[in-house]
Amino acid sequence: MTSSPVVVAVDVGGTEIKAALVRGPEPTVLRQLRRATPKLAGGTETADAVVAEVAGIVGELSAGEEPAAVGVVVPGIVDDERRIGVFSANLGWRDYPFGEALAARLPGPLAFGHDVRAGGLAEARLGAGRGLDDLVVLPIGTGIAGALIIGGRPHSGGGYAGEIGHLVIADGPECACGQRGCLELIASSSAVARRYAERTGRSVTGAADVAAALREGDADAKLVWGDAVDALARAITQLATLFAPQAVVLGGGLAMAGELLTAPLERRLDGLITIQRRPELRRAALGDRAGCLGAALMAIEAVSFLEGR
Amino acid sequence: MTSSPVVVAVDVGGTEIKAALVRGPEPTVLRQLRRATPKLAGGTETADAVVAEVAGIVGELSAGEEPAAVGVVVPGIVDDERRIGVFSANLGWRDYPFGEALAARLPGPLAFGHDVRAGGLAEARLGAGRGLDDLVVLPIGTGIAGALIIGGRPHSGGGYAGEIGHLVIADGPECACGQRGCLELIASSSAVARRYAERTGRSVTGAADVAAALREGDADAKLVWGDAVDALARAITQLATLFAPQAVVLGGGLAMAGELLTAPLERRLDGLITIQRRPELRRAALGDRAGCLGAALMAIEAVSFLEGR
Repeated sequence: MTSSPVVVAVDVGGTEIKAALVRGPEPTVLRQLRRATPKLAGGTETADAVVAEVAGIVGELSAGEEPAAVGVVVPGIVDDERRIGVFSANLGWRDYPFGEALAARLPGPLAFGHDVRAGGLAEARLGAGRGLDDLVVLPIGTGIAGALIIGGRPHSGGGYAGEIGHLVIADGPECACGQRGCLELIASSSAVARRYAERTGRSVTGAADVAAALREGDADAKLVWGDAVDALARAITQLATLFAPQAVVLGGGLAMAGELLTAPLERRLDGLITIQRRPELRRAALGDRAGCLGAALMAIEAVSFLEGR
Repeated sequence: MTSSPVVVAVDVGGTEIKAALVRGPEPTVLRQLRRATPKLAGGTETADAVVAEVAGIVGELSAGEEPAAVGVVVPGIVDDERRIGVFSANLGWRDYPFGEALAARLPGPLAFGHDVRAGGLAEARLGAGRGLDDLVVLPIGTGIAGALIIGGRPHSGGGYAGEIGHLVIADGPECACGQRGCLELIASSSAVARRYAERTGRSVTGAADVAAALREGDADAKLVWGDAVDALARAITQLATLFAPQAVVLGGGLAMAGELLTAPLERRLDGLITIQRRPELRRAALGDRAGCLGAALMAIEAVSFLEGR
């Protein structure tokens, strides 16, 4: 067990829980499953139900054998050190003591953290960021989150770091966060879809439809997409000014557009980056498995730490 | 020597070199001196002359005894790992191999780095940031630099991190860096003095004069100072959004204004900070000794490292 511990990794998402039985240290996935995330009326009830579901999943995946450790990551604002789910807009909890609640129901040591930072860790160690020390992993989906990997480790800032979607980029509409002109109101996948639908009156199912329209030369798609690219380039320039990452790893729905996103983004950066170290743009490699793999890495690391290696 | 090494620390500034003989591990300053920085026509000649001057100072301060290590910090863009002075606008060098040049002329091991990050390290360990893990040290003088201290260590980003003065804050004049609307064009000490002089036609010797006018209710001073406070508050909000420091330590000339700066800055942050972790504002404690103390800490750390402690 010492050289190749078997752990269970669980990534609790807004709609789905992804879990895997994983053998370290590589890690190698032995078995995996997905379940709907339980959602109840109250946030604390939802969190209690998530804990129960996670305990069930761990039992099921480890099939009676005790895993060397369990890694669990959750969304929202997460205080990794105190092991608290500070806030989840989607699942409704506030200051829920996940560490305590999970430890009471799970065998062995627990590694607890944040889904986006765990996903960033996995991209850094196993995916698009392999070999780099300083990078930003930027999943662009319904919102825009970010994992700042510094010296190979996610920076947490008490749970508050990496809120790149709430960088104020331009005059713009009011955001749910209380600021105006946040990046994610212009450049998230859902913002791109919403802004296109508002301009054209046409209903779209997501940013992929806007990308398809753009490929056909649609002028409204061009404008909305251009705004998103410009806002992303400005945010990446701010990151370069402050953090100087070696690379920015683009993930989530919008990054599925590939060259359609990265080519104009590189061109826009040509005009914005001056004295800053220019970050390489890379596509995320691990897709929606990143969070679960990150949870596995955290669990494997907990085992190594406990074994004093 | 092992438990209390004696090192020489040297902080090369744009106009002055500050140096000290320091006993670790506290550190305790045993002797210190200041010298004018040699400036020659070419950047490489200047760098050569700086290296010769540093070697002379080290010999003088250590008075024949060999120091356990020497710490040297220089301004500009500095690649700590490769020990290269990438660029100094003020002293004119580009890609100068300080590590190699200094090692050839100095006894014992060398710790080499960046003046602002070294100063930030000193504030974090010995000054206003004691007890904190994550902070930003922000000297506001002719320009605005920044040291990002993450998990108690300065983050270098290959030498490019912490260029807070070049965050784009608002539409504004063109900056020497090639961007428009950089923070330091509005909120550095020299920008405050320049903008006030431009508005009023009155000549001022520095931001302290503008602060004095502000205390007397001068309307132009109020406007210029207000712009600086607003721009600083916006930059600190960006820092809080991305990095979530526990504190921002204000130093340099503008911070000498004390409450006159911090009180309106706190009020402006009240209106800007929403979901971010609000950083505490602190005044720098070490003044212009910070860089030299940081160089001493780096040298002491080099000794500890070499002794495997």
